[in-house]
Amino acid sequence: MRIKEIAAAAKKASIKLAAAETELKNKALQEIAINLGNCKDKIIVANKADLERSEKEGLALPLLKRLRFDESKIQDVIEGIQSLINLPDPVGQTLDSTEMDGGLELYKVSCPIGVIGVIFESRPDALVQISTLCLKSGNSVLLKGGSEARETNKTLAEIIVEAAEKAGLPPGWLQLLETRTDVNDMLKLDQYIDLIIPRGSNDFVRYIMDNSRIAVLGHADGICHCYVHKNADLDLAVKVVVDSKTQYAAACNTTETLLVDKEIAPQFLPLVKEALEEKHVELVGCSKTLSVIDITPASEEDWKTEYLDYKLSIRIVEQLDEAVEHINTYGSGHTDAIITENKNAVAAFMSLVDSGSVFWNCSTRFSDGFRYGLGAEVGISTNKIHARGPVGLEGLLIYKYLLAGSGQTVEEYANRVKRFTHKKLHKNFNL
Amino acid sequence: MRIKEIAAAAKKASIKLAAAETELKNKALQEIAINLGNCKDKIIVANKADLERSEKEGLALPLLKRLRFDESKIQDVIEGIQSLINLPDPVGQTLDSTEMDGGLELYKVSCPIGVIGVIFESRPDALVQISTLCLKSGNSVLLKGGSEARETNKTLAEIIVEAAEKAGLPPGWLQLLETRTDVNDMLKLDQYIDLIIPRGSNDFVRYIMDNSRIAVLGHADGICHCYVHKNADLDLAVKVVVDSKTQYAAACNTTETLLVDKEIAPQFLPLVKEALEEKHVELVGCSKTLSVIDITPASEEDWKTEYLDYKLSIRIVEQLDEAVEHINTYGSGHTDAIITENKNAVAAFMSLVDSGSVFWNCSTRFSDGFRYGLGAEVGISTNKIHARGPVGLEGLLIYKYLLAGSGQTVEEYANRVKRFTHKKLHKNFNL
Repeated sequence: MRIKEIAAAAKKASIKLAAAETELKNKALQEIAINLGNCKDKIIVANKADLERSEKEGLALPLLKRLRFDESKIQDVIEGIQSLINLPDPVGQTLDSTEMDGGLELYKVSCPIGVIGVIFESRPDALVQISTLCLKSGNSVLLKGGSEARETNKTLAEIIVEAAEKAGLPPGWLQLLETRTDVNDMLKLDQYIDLIIPRGSNDFVRYIMDNSRIAVLGHADGICHCYVHKNADLDLAVKVVVDSKTQYAAACNTTETLLVDKEIAPQFLPLVKEALEEKHVELVGCSKTLSVIDITPASEEDWKTEYLDYKLSIRIVEQLDEAVEHINTYGSGHTDAIITENKNAVAAFMSLVDSGSVFWNCSTRFSDGFRYGLGAEVGISTNKIHARGPVGLEGLLIYKYLLAGSGQTVEEYANRVKRFTHKKLHKNFNL
Repeated sequence: MRIKEIAAAAKKASIKLAAAETELKNKALQEIAINLGNCKDKIIVANKADLERSEKEGLALPLLKRLRFDESKIQDVIEGIQSLINLPDPVGQTLDSTEMDGGLELYKVSCPIGVIGVIFESRPDALVQISTLCLKSGNSVLLKGGSEARETNKTLAEIIVEAAEKAGLPPGWLQLLETRTDVNDMLKLDQYIDLIIPRGSNDFVRYIMDNSRIAVLGHADGICHCYVHKNADLDLAVKVVVDSKTQYAAACNTTETLLVDKEIAPQFLPLVKEALEEKHVELVGCSKTLSVIDITPASEEDWKTEYLDYKLSIRIVEQLDEAVEHINTYGSGHTDAIITENKNAVAAFMSLVDSGSVFWNCSTRFSDGFRYGLGAEVGISTNKIHARGPVGLEGLLIYKYLLAGSGQTVEEYANRVKRFTHKKLHKNFNL
C-alpha cells in the first residue's frame, strides 16, 4: 500500500476509534496482553534475528542492549498494558460546561487527536507502549521504528493488530512504516496526520519540523542545569549534583552544566570535584572556576553542548539572576534545578526559569513520565504549546465543543431579543 | 531595530512578564484603559488618515467599515479591558499535584507560552484585544496589522506601550512589525518566538506553516455544515438553517453546505428553499436534490468551497453515516450541526464528527469565543493540538512542572531503597 492509502485508512479508523466505548478499548488491550504472552517464543526468535544481524553489522553495545527484547521485557510490557487498562478512559471527559442561555448548553469534552505518526528509536518496547497508549486514548498510529529492530517490530505489530481486530477494533488503526522514504512521504500528508512525535536525535527532530506542515511534539536537546545557590546545604548539593550527572549519563535529563554562586564556590567546588572525579566525570570550567579548582578550561561551546556522557561544565555566577540568565540563554528548556535552603530564591528561580521542569533540592534525573506518575510516556516535550515536559496519555488528547440547543438562532441574540447568561454548569455532558 | 533584536527583546521581557504579579498586570491594564480614553482624539485623527488614504486607494466598503475606529469602538475596547481586569489571573494556577514520595512533591502550574507573533487583519480593535489578552496571560507579543490601518495601529501601540511602561511593565513586551519582510524574518526566529497566530486568508496561514518551524495556531477554511436528520422538527430546521447561512454570510462559522436525509427531503427542501430564497440565497444541489427542487446543479468543487457569501450547496444523504462521511471528507473541522429530535442520532453525530465544535439544534453561527463566554477571542482554531475551536486566554497558556524535594536522588529509587508513592495531593503549589 502506498503511504497515502495507509494514512487514509488510519484516518478512517481514527473516526471509529474516537467513538469506541471504554469496554471495547480495554477488551482490545486485554487481547493484546494475552497475545503477547502467547507469542513470546515468536517474538524472541524475531529479536534474536535482529540482534545477530545488528551485531554482525557492528551495532554499538549500548544499542544492542536496548534492542534486546527478552522474556522479562515481554513481561514488563504486559504489566504496562494491565496498568493502562486500569486507568480511567481519558476520552469523553467533560472539561468545562457553560449555560449560554436556558436550553443552550456548551460542553468542552476531551477527545483523541486523530492520527499520530511516531518515529522511534531501537527499543522494541517503545512500539508496544506507544501503540497501546494510542489505543487507550482512541488515536490511530503510524509507527516507524529503527531498522535494526525491524523483525521484532514487525512481529510485535502483527501480534497487536491481530489481537485488536479480534476484539473488534477497526482495521488500519495501527500500521508500520518500513523505510525512511515512507517517513518523508508521511510528512506531506497533513490532511490525514494530525501530530508527529519523533523520538530521535535533535537534528532529526529539526529536519521533521522543517519538512512538514504537521504539528511536531518533540524534544530538542536536554541541556539541563544544577544551580547551587549561596544558601545551599553543601552536602545535599554534592549528593544531588552527583546523581544528576552520573545516575545515567546518556539520558536527556542528565545535568550538563553546574552553576555555582561565587560566595560558596571556594567551599563547594573542591567537595563536588572530589565526588564527581570518584565517578570518573571529566570537568571543564569557566576562568573563575579554574581559580578555585584545577580543571580544564571550558569554551563557549561547552555551555551549548549536551554531552550525554561523563563530562560536566562548571560556571561560577555572581547571583541568582546570572544563573537564570545563563539557563534561559544556553539551556534547552528541559529540566533545571536549584539547590538552596532559601525559599525566596526558590520562588524566583521557579518563576524565572523558562523550562518544562524546574526542580528544587532534587536530581534533574527525576524528569520522567514514569517517575511523575503519568504511567507510560510518549516522550519529553521541550515544545511550549500543547504539552510540555514528560508527556503521558494526556498529550494524545484534545477536546471538542459540544453545543446542545433547542432551535436557537444567533439573530435573536444579535437583536438583543435574548441575552447570554454564561453561567458555569459544573456538570458532565449527557444527552 | 532589526527583527532579531526586536524578538530578542520580546523574549527577555517575556521572562519578567511571566513572573509578574497579578496586581502589576492589572495595574498596567488599567493604565492602558485610561490612556486610550485620554488619547481618543489622537486615535480618531490617525484612523481618519487611514480611512482617507484607503478610500483613495479603493479599499472595498466592507473593509473600510472594519477599518473605522470611532469613539464607540474605543469605548468598546476600554470596556473589554475592564472585563479582562476582572478575570482571575490565568497564570500560576495549580493544574495538578502529586506526591511522588514523602517530601518530594510535583506541581503542574500554568504559565505563559512566552513570545507570541500575531498577524491580524484590518480591524484596529484586534490590536487592543490581542495585546491586552497577551498582557493578562503574561506573554510578550509581536504584532503585524494590515497596512491599511498603519497609522491607527501605530498610535494604539504607542498608547499601550506608554501606559504599560508607566505601570512598570518591562520594555519590549509589545512591538509592532512594519512590513511583510518583517513577517518573513520573524518566521525564522524560532529561538525567540514560541507561537504564531495568523488571522488572515487560508493561503496565508498555509504559507506561514510551510515557511516556519514555529508552531502555528490558525484556522483553515470554515466549511461548516447543517445536517437535517430524518427525525428533525422541520420548522426548527428551517429556522436554524436560515440563521446559519444568512445571519452574517461572510463569517467563517456560516454554514456552506446543507445535508438532508432522503426520507424528509421531499417535505423539507421546498420549505427551506422558500425561506432561503426570501433572503436571496443562491442554491446549488446534488442530482437527487434537483429531482425535488428546481435549483442549479452543484459540482464536486462546491462541497470544498467556503463561499463566505449568500450561496449554499445542498446534498441529499441516505442516512447519518453518509452525512458524517461527507462532513469528515469535505468539511474543515470548524463547526457542524445536526438538527434532529432523536438523541441516539445526536450522540452518534457528536462522537463521529471530527470538528472543533459540534452542535445540536442550533445555528453554526454560535461558534465564537464571545458567545461561548470565553471573554475575548484570539481566533478560532482548526488545529487538533493545543487549542481547538474558539480560543480565549487559555490558548495563550502552557504549564511547567515544579518539583520540590529535600535532597532526593534517582539512584535511591533505581535501587529500590525508596519507592514512589504517586498519591494525588489536591493542593496548590506553595513554598
